[in-house]
Amino acid sequence: MTPALAPLELLRNDSTEGDASIASAPYRKTRQPVKMTFEAHADDWTCINTIRTLSLDVVNKANSGHPGAPMGMAPVAHILWSRFMRCNPKSSHWPNRDRFVLSNGHACALQYVLLHLLGYKLSMDDLKSFRQVDSTCNGHPEVHHTDGVEVTTGPLGQGFGNAVGLAMAQAQVGATFNKDGFSLFDNYTYMFTGDGCLQEGVASEAASLAGHLQLGNLIAIYDSNKITIDGDTAVSFTEDVTKRMEAYGWHCQTVEQGDDDLEGMYSAILAAQQVKDKPSFITLKTTIGFGSKLQGTHGVHGNPLKPDDTEAIKKKFGFDPAAKFAIPDATKTAYAKIGERGAKLESDWTELLSKYTEKFSAEGKDLERRLAGKLPDGWEKCLPVYSQKDDAIASRKLSETVITKLADAVPEFVCGSADLTGSNLTRWKTATDFQPPSTGLGSYAGRYMRYGIREHGMGAIANGMAAYGGNLILPAISTFANFTSYAAGAIRLSALSGFRVIWVATHDSIGLGEDGPTHQPIEVAAHFRALPNMHVWRPADGNETSAAYLMAMMNATTPSMLLLTRQNLPQLENSTIAHATKGGYVVHDTDGETDLTYVSTGSEVSICMEAAKILMDKGVKVRVVSLPCFEIFAAQPKDYRMSILPDGHPVLSVEAYSTVSWGALAHEHYGMSTFGASGPYKDVYKKFGFTGENIASVGEKVIAFWKGKTILSPQNTCLVAI
Amino acid sequence: MTPALAPLELLRNDSTEGDASIASAPYRKTRQPVKMTFEAHADDWTCINTIRTLSLDVVNKANSGHPGAPMGMAPVAHILWSRFMRCNPKSSHWPNRDRFVLSNGHACALQYVLLHLLGYKLSMDDLKSFRQVDSTCNGHPEVHHTDGVEVTTGPLGQGFGNAVGLAMAQAQVGATFNKDGFSLFDNYTYMFTGDGCLQEGVASEAASLAGHLQLGNLIAIYDSNKITIDGDTAVSFTEDVTKRMEAYGWHCQTVEQGDDDLEGMYSAILAAQQVKDKPSFITLKTTIGFGSKLQGTHGVHGNPLKPDDTEAIKKKFGFDPAAKFAIPDATKTAYAKIGERGAKLESDWTELLSKYTEKFSAEGKDLERRLAGKLPDGWEKCLPVYSQKDDAIASRKLSETVITKLADAVPEFVCGSADLTGSNLTRWKTATDFQPPSTGLGSYAGRYMRYGIREHGMGAIANGMAAYGGNLILPAISTFANFTSYAAGAIRLSALSGFRVIWVATHDSIGLGEDGPTHQPIEVAAHFRALPNMHVWRPADGNETSAAYLMAMMNATTPSMLLLTRQNLPQLENSTIAHATKGGYVVHDTDGETDLTYVSTGSEVSICMEAAKILMDKGVKVRVVSLPCFEIFAAQPKDYRMSILPDGHPVLSVEAYSTVSWGALAHEHYGMSTFGASGPYKDVYKKFGFTGENIASVGEKVIAFWKGKTILSPQNTCLVAI
Repeated sequence: MTPALAPLELLRNDSTEGDASIASAPYRKTRQPVKMTFEAHADDWTCINTIRTLSLDVVNKANSGHPGAPMGMAPVAHILWSRFMRCNPKSSHWPNRDRFVLSNGHACALQYVLLHLLGYKLSMDDLKSFRQVDSTCNGHPEVHHTDGVEVTTGPLGQGFGNAVGLAMAQAQVGATFNKDGFSLFDNYTYMFTGDGCLQEGVASEAASLAGHLQLGNLIAIYDSNKITIDGDTAVSFTEDVTKRMEAYGWHCQTVEQGDDDLEGMYSAILAAQQVKDKPSFITLKTTIGFGSKLQGTHGVHGNPLKPDDTEAIKKKFGFDPAAKFAIPDATKTAYAKIGERGAKLESDWTELLSKYTEKFSAEGKDLERRLAGKLPDGWEKCLPVYSQKDDAIASRKLSETVITKLADAVPEFVCGSADLTGSNLTRWKTATDFQPPSTGLGSYAGRYMRYGIREHGMGAIANGMAAYGGNLILPAISTFANFTSYAAGAIRLSALSGFRVIWVATHDSIGLGEDGPTHQPIEVAAHFRALPNMHVWRPADGNETSAAYLMAMMNATTPSMLLLTRQNLPQLENSTIAHATKGGYVVHDTDGETDLTYVSTGSEVSICMEAAKILMDKGVKVRVVSLPCFEIFAAQPKDYRMSILPDGHPVLSVEAYSTVSWGALAHEHYGMSTFGASGPYKDVYKKFGFTGENIASVGEKVIAFWKGKTILSPQNTCLVAI
Repeated sequence: MTPALAPLELLRNDSTEGDASIASAPYRKTRQPVKMTFEAHADDWTCINTIRTLSLDVVNKANSGHPGAPMGMAPVAHILWSRFMRCNPKSSHWPNRDRFVLSNGHACALQYVLLHLLGYKLSMDDLKSFRQVDSTCNGHPEVHHTDGVEVTTGPLGQGFGNAVGLAMAQAQVGATFNKDGFSLFDNYTYMFTGDGCLQEGVASEAASLAGHLQLGNLIAIYDSNKITIDGDTAVSFTEDVTKRMEAYGWHCQTVEQGDDDLEGMYSAILAAQQVKDKPSFITLKTTIGFGSKLQGTHGVHGNPLKPDDTEAIKKKFGFDPAAKFAIPDATKTAYAKIGERGAKLESDWTELLSKYTEKFSAEGKDLERRLAGKLPDGWEKCLPVYSQKDDAIASRKLSETVITKLADAVPEFVCGSADLTGSNLTRWKTATDFQPPSTGLGSYAGRYMRYGIREHGMGAIANGMAAYGGNLILPAISTFANFTSYAAGAIRLSALSGFRVIWVATHDSIGLGEDGPTHQPIEVAAHFRALPNMHVWRPADGNETSAAYLMAMMNATTPSMLLLTRQNLPQLENSTIAHATKGGYVVHDTDGETDLTYVSTGSEVSICMEAAKILMDKGVKVRVVSLPCFEIFAAQPKDYRMSILPDGHPVLSVEAYSTVSWGALAHEHYGMSTFGASGPYKDVYKKFGFTGENIASVGEKVIAFWKGKTILSPQNTCLVAI
């Protein structure tokens, strides 16, 4: 009988000695591996070839997918899981598990096979239904869809950013909670990445920040197989990747024989763990589709292999060529042991947590709440309430007030900006920056993140932080509204993943003023309103801003974007937090008959009020509706929606954005059909007709046009659409 | 009297000796500078300080803008223009001018001041109206808005990509037209860039490709002032930038004394010109806001300076502290001479062109046409025409046929993909790749670009190519529809700039199938329909695909995006190129009375036809409308639009995207309100109800709901909105 795989507790010394700097270290400095040399196991290659052949069967059965990378990366995957990974397949959300990110998500057959072998909730039938409708095994890995998948990957480069975010989260949460002798949060984040991810700008941005932040808890393994869909990387990707990663401040190693040098892989990962002040990058030179007669070509990248090739591969690896989805007993045994090891690790941790809670009752209680995914009791009482008498205030400034209060009331709330802190107003006065202590600029327990001018990287990182779990960390991030577009790839994954990421998007609309058309968003509101599971808020005053934060914090599986003004906004007459949380409400009503309803958002609601006053002075009966969040309004019952936008009179929308997203909410639309202009915001508003006078005049035209017509509410439809 | 600035003809030898490799070199190898040593000019510092003080006055007058970078970069700007730049201010579109890109576009006071001093169409009054509505001098530089501005910059990183595109265009056009003794296109592209641009992923992507492409004609000058809006770059940007650029394959130099070492700047640019097989990167260590008492801090980055500081600066530089917008005669004289030098360069070039046309009549004629901005006569005859009897074909495949024909008919048409060539079907069989000859993979005259997995970089590069001028080069670029989102920042600048860039966006909608939700666009159509000056096409069959290309090619100041299917589409009954070029038309009509109109796009039009047949069999009167391009449909007269979508019956939209953009075109909407699913496309369509049967059933519900109601067309409004 061969010996069992070396259990992880033998490889790493879990005793935690006193370390005064622990609160500022991103991981426990005292945890050292014991086994410094690699010990081969008789069944290593059986396991590796099981992963290869099973991945092949998975892709062949689906007749769709990517066999090449799984076959090339099977050895390192086996080494990582068998020797290093601290995870409990029966408890996939154990808070201190090591995180794994498959940034080259198209290689997901590899991940699904591993999850199955390890005993996650992923059956053989699930593997057999890869890429079929309603399968557990989608075409690319999705968090909250497949047990054991930490983040949604496939769109290249995103996983890289997510991994940086997971590592930042560990550093922040670890520095917040760990105490001498109680290293509760000290997991590593491992990432597999490929040539595709490394060409994407989002990964470059995240890599640069990870180097700056000295994230020693992050270990990337680069599947350098030199093949992409267009063929050899020689056609477009000839840079020196290692040199670039070194330039970012990463610790770099290369394993030349990535197809078979198990010891080299082991040693590289071990060495990476020793480097405490740099993220690690291991270049593993592999052969894509290892074992296939097409190995090393893009013929194995994204297509199933031919039956004869598949059979030859199985034969070569000592497997029955005719058998499909076969798992040797040795593999089953080895992977069951990984699970057992993980269960033990979790139970030890749970014990440690219980002692921690005894000794540090305040921290323990806070941690218990966070792990349960709950916000602090009564946190929402911190949200400011305004009355109509209060001053006009810019909504970015209103947001600053909320953020300052949230920072006190919700300790897991962290915030940051893509180098626009003083403009976005996202930093509270007492904040500590999240920085490596060696910089002298902050600590890892800091809750204010400096992302640099890296919007896309910031978005992907925030997804990674949100993925760290529960309420351990709750990220808000910020840039100008216009530059959320740079991060569109990450934002759509927030929405698809159901991550509560709050985008504080200031300098909304043409109200941005002097910076001009290059900086004035026109299409942004429609873009993100069209994204499923996304809440776009455009608050019109103080109470609406508070409501936006309330709902953004309460909707734990939906990202939110708050479009906030640079310019001051008056407090509205009927605005309350409760009204605004319905997504839409009547700001100003008529007594009975109505000639026109203005429906608007954000900075244009008060302009509609001005217009309404002008018309009312002429005896025209006008209502004004504010619709700060279309998605939440659309979720209200039809009765409610019809009470806000009733039949019988025309509804005119007014918003200083494209009118494209307003169709279901008004009969007529006044908005931006061109780009904006550069100038003081009042002049720009005037140029495009967003003044009380002009909006009143447009309203009169609309009333005249619709006079005598039978008018149904735009919400009076049989299908619900926003 | 001081001697005149060294005319450029003395600095560079314009004789062109025979060089067999000329067709594959990105610039003329034989053009060597004569003056290898720097000669200071008595008025250099007067000129430099004029730029500084004038920039300061411009920002102060506007009470808005960025004085710091102009003050820091004035010395290098002066050296570049006075010693190197080949431009004719009186003829800003001279085809062989050197290109200048201010990637750090917020420093535009610098550019506007230079344009004024040089004699472009930018008056002192224009400078005084900086950042005011309807000024020539917008908050950030915009092409087609300000004479002499080559590309629109400000959104950080974009200009970097544009400069790479301009350099690629020069290489391609030069390799296409230059002959022994006739180096018609051999300009350099100079770019100023800052810490912000270099953090953005879009710049990283473009830089990596530029290195691969060995673009020796590209010279970047990095204003390394270590200051961004959040303060010192130490807070988030501590990578080794030079090492990173070297890793990309750039030639790197550093000028340590960037505030005053004019000779160092001169020598570095000169050396950069000598490096023929690498783009050049010159790190210039400067002091932001040089001369201010706040110099070297972010206090001078984005705010006007105080009056006392302004006066002290002027005094320090030997200017009258009380005078504003003052230009010493010496500066006027020096800059007038740069203009004279440029005029001479252009007239020499025009003479060369005329000799070229005599000697090479075919090339000369083609060049004349291209320079006039005209497409080849009758090019549109190459577009394939289909009849209903033709096979069902995927629109990406239909697009491949068009591209293959365009490649023959329109020599300036170049195409490329972000590493999805075999999926996007963007390469014609006889294409040569655009590659450095040393790679053995193609030549600079090649017309197929391999962008690597760099969508955002590709978008910014295409903008740069389009900016090269006229019909010299006409770029089409490609990725999956879903990943156009990665490039959103660049696409909005295509639209704002009025660049004819054609996005070939395949694997449209949930029809993408197995790759699943991560790869299925839902919000993309609404996003880009909401972008001003953008044409989004979703062709339903062969003739509509031909129409999309026809209009995309003909609209020389509008970018287009073609959303194309992976799956086959049948040819429609009433589809013609002429019909489709109206943006919308009736595919199937009723004889008189109508119960329902289906309105749809792309792959769902034929599904609506199936539904219509089911309903017609039951005696229901149904029309089907195809709307391949909303923007072009919206531009038709109301009569036409009402004829397509008349009053009197309900209109139901059917599109496998978010319904958000359909409001003005239908009463009821059937679309995607969630993300998609992973599976064979027919199963995915079925899951979400996009089948003839279900759409017929939805149609019946809609008819029942609207029965007896007075129904106005959704287009029957007084305001025009799409």
